Amino acid sequence: MIKYMQLFHGTAFTSISPKKIKILKDHLFCVNADGIIERIVAPEDSDYQSLLDAYQGKDNFHRLAEGQYFLPGFIDLHVHAPQWAQSGTALDIPLYDWLNTYTFPLESKFSDLRFAGEVYEDVVGTLLANGTTTALYFATVHKEASLLLAEICAKKGQRGLVGKVVMDDPQQNPENYRDKDTVTALADTEEFILAVKELAKSAKQGVYPVVTPRFIPSCTDDALKGLGELAAKYDTYIQSHCSESDWAHGYVRDRFQKNDAFALHDFGLLRDKSVMAHCNFLSDEDAALFADTGTAIAHCPISNAYFANSVIPVAHFHDKGVEIGLGSDISGGFSPSLFDNIRQAVISSRMLEDGVNPSLPSGDRGVPNSRLTIHEAFYLATAGGGESLSLPIGRIQESYAWDVQIIDTKQPSAKLPIFDENEALDDIFQKIMYLARPEHIREVWVQGEKVHSR
Amino acid sequence: MIKYMQLFHGTAFTSISPKKIKILKDHLFCVNADGIIERIVAPEDSDYQSLLDAYQGKDNFHRLAEGQYFLPGFIDLHVHAPQWAQSGTALDIPLYDWLNTYTFPLESKFSDLRFAGEVYEDVVGTLLANGTTTALYFATVHKEASLLLAEICAKKGQRGLVGKVVMDDPQQNPENYRDKDTVTALADTEEFILAVKELAKSAKQGVYPVVTPRFIPSCTDDALKGLGELAAKYDTYIQSHCSESDWAHGYVRDRFQKNDAFALHDFGLLRDKSVMAHCNFLSDEDAALFADTGTAIAHCPISNAYFANSVIPVAHFHDKGVEIGLGSDISGGFSPSLFDNIRQAVISSRMLEDGVNPSLPSGDRGVPNSRLTIHEAFYLATAGGGESLSLPIGRIQESYAWDVQIIDTKQPSAKLPIFDENEALDDIFQKIMYLARPEHIREVWVQGEKVHSR
Ligand SMILES: [Zn+2]
Ligand SMILES: [Zn+2]
Repeated sequence: MIKYMQLFHGTAFTSISPKKIKILKDHLFCVNADGIIERIVAPEDSDYQSLLDAYQGKDNFHRLAEGQYFLPGFIDLHVHAPQWAQSGTALDIPLYDWLNTYTFPLESKFSDLRFAGEVYEDVVGTLLANGTTTALYFATVHKEASLLLAEICAKKGQRGLVGKVVMDDPQQNPENYRDKDTVTALADTEEFILAVKELAKSAKQGVYPVVTPRFIPSCTDDALKGLGELAAKYDTYIQSHCSESDWAHGYVRDRFQKNDAFALHDFGLLRDKSVMAHCNFLSDEDAALFADTGTAIAHCPISNAYFANSVIPVAHFHDKGVEIGLGSDISGGFSPSLFDNIRQAVISSRMLEDGVNPSLPSGDRGVPNSRLTIHEAFYLATAGGGESLSLPIGRIQESYAWDVQIIDTKQPSAKLPIFDENEALDDIFQKIMYLARPEHIREVWVQGEKVHSR
Repeated sequence: MIKYMQLFHGTAFTSISPKKIKILKDHLFCVNADGIIERIVAPEDSDYQSLLDAYQGKDNFHRLAEGQYFLPGFIDLHVHAPQWAQSGTALDIPLYDWLNTYTFPLESKFSDLRFAGEVYEDVVGTLLANGTTTALYFATVHKEASLLLAEICAKKGQRGLVGKVVMDDPQQNPENYRDKDTVTALADTEEFILAVKELAKSAKQGVYPVVTPRFIPSCTDDALKGLGELAAKYDTYIQSHCSESDWAHGYVRDRFQKNDAFALHDFGLLRDKSVMAHCNFLSDEDAALFADTGTAIAHCPISNAYFANSVIPVAHFHDKGVEIGLGSDISGGFSPSLFDNIRQAVISSRMLEDGVNPSLPSGDRGVPNSRLTIHEAFYLATAGGGESLSLPIGRIQESYAWDVQIIDTKQPSAKLPIFDENEALDDIFQKIMYLARPEHIREVWVQGEKVHSR
């Protein structure tokens, strides 16, 4: 009867569609040695009781306490790992100045592996403590420090997708922080890809190299072309920024007489394994190209309030068939929590729908049908992220990885406001979405391994 | 030399103007028996060392650990205490439906004092744990339960301003949740005022009765008139909702052919001790009336995203001389944290400035000069709240109450991202504003008494 590596017993919330969640009340979750959910057994299933009898009391049986719930681990599709060191500062200036005055000088310090290690250990641990089981990271231009970030993910058990950043254009980047030249940028990227693929052999949860042109403005045509070729050669993920702000969007239109999406596509940078951050100014044609190529959007709702000059119409792009997940965009976004980003995704969508300027008549103020529900925002942070990465993650479902966070609504220092013993589970789900903080996240598991507890 | 009740030693942040903070590095804060800051002594002052020598090692000497900072306690100008029980749920429906389907049925349950006590103990404790040292509360229509809320504030040491809600119009309110009639509404309010004034005699930090017409739509003219008279007779605070949403704003215009502000003023409800929640649709004339009468705005940025159909132009109304503080608006706003509301105040202001609809040209999208900095949002949550209530609170300054929260940036479970030992204190301030959570708030003091620690 003991055929599973581990058995978990409790109530779980998971998305079954962008708008709908499924509540698995008092289910059994059977996890195999690879960390995959092999079976989910409902109380009404015939072998529920016999499984319980066989595993109860054993070390590999885990029963949630009263008031605890399983959620899928979060998938953060856009994190600048080095920028964690400046998170929360200097958010009052435009993107271009923010990059040149604060961000590039900070990132240049990651040539120092000691400093890089200190910040990267902290950001990976912090994201795990915030329930993020998978993260798609921008590192810096430095090959060694970028590899160190992948190693730290591997060691701490987080599913890390890591990119060495390419920014090779001497006209556009500071002299002390850029790739030496285009050839070096591509050679370093190729070495980085190979090193991470080697590292991946010993990381159960997976670590992945990501081809990472910072954004079009920082790269030469040759670098963009070469990166597209490397991605195809090694079948890697690709990440960049796309049509983020008026300035960035306008820069690309000036240079290529087309939008970011088509320019990136010309260089082979839009493919099923591509994730583009922000995408606020995507046209409908751009969105169709995303849907055709399988390119996903990393929606970064907090960061967008500071640097994107607008709210991206997520509901509209979802309707067009584009895959969308959530990104914290540390440190354009200050928060390492996808809970915070789930909340802001809903809030921002309401502001897009209703509009913001009270001196306009209500009919002229907003964009109808733009709102996201909290259930949809949860989908973005979990299942939507998994689809964006084409990995079996983000759902509590058979054949998916056991990547979960255990939320305690009765945590004594921060009890959630649940006063009715028979409160509907969907209401409890909403309270968790709106009110949970890191102290409610008691355990985090990735690929069947416990990687955080408090 | 031992002339102060307590001496605190550490670095504090406090507002000196809406846009500027003052950093009191390694200062001494001398607090007297009334809980008032009698003196603040800088390291360069002549008796700094002798004070240190006299108090160090004594029980009434409190030195902050490395990485800890004093902030003024937060002042929450708008909380519906009973709605804490539904915080985070049902945020996807319009105000009118939300009130009638969820909120009124919940509030009606506060006739049960046992239930009321359970929720009120929890919400007051939760707000203290979130750094809120003063709160302006809506209770329910029930006189006894409203008094219980004031008693719980008194007992727990929070400075509570509490209103028994008046909603007497039988046409506008559900039969099972409203005042019995206008005469009863006014009589209950008067009894409530007297009972809280009695209670206040034994509450060091102060508790205050608040005249509380729910909003114009729920009250008869006679009730509004009578409440204005009661407020004048007893010189009490007044709170209500004002021009919150298109619907509420339009309702008042239909009924009185004028905006809420002037309608409230006609009933004697705008005075120096008045605080009006939301105020999104105030005209410039309304704002001038607020400034003339000393009426303050409780800005509720999270709630407004759900129910106010717009972003209030805070910067504009500040320029017009209106006093403004922050409100959580539990449960129109889901979060009990003014940190969360500080962040959303900045984010919402950026969205008002930049606009939200990416398909509009940037020049037509937003309202220029609307942004608030994080320093201004901090001002709203602290000094602005104190000014709104005309109380000596919200600043760490001589003659102000010792209402503070102690923030630990090195809390092991949630260390803030500070990697440079010499990081500028203003950057640390910004990191606290953007990243602090309840677990960073190690102690909370009100009027010289410790009311929360963890
Ligand atoms: Zn980015
Ligand atoms: Zn309210």
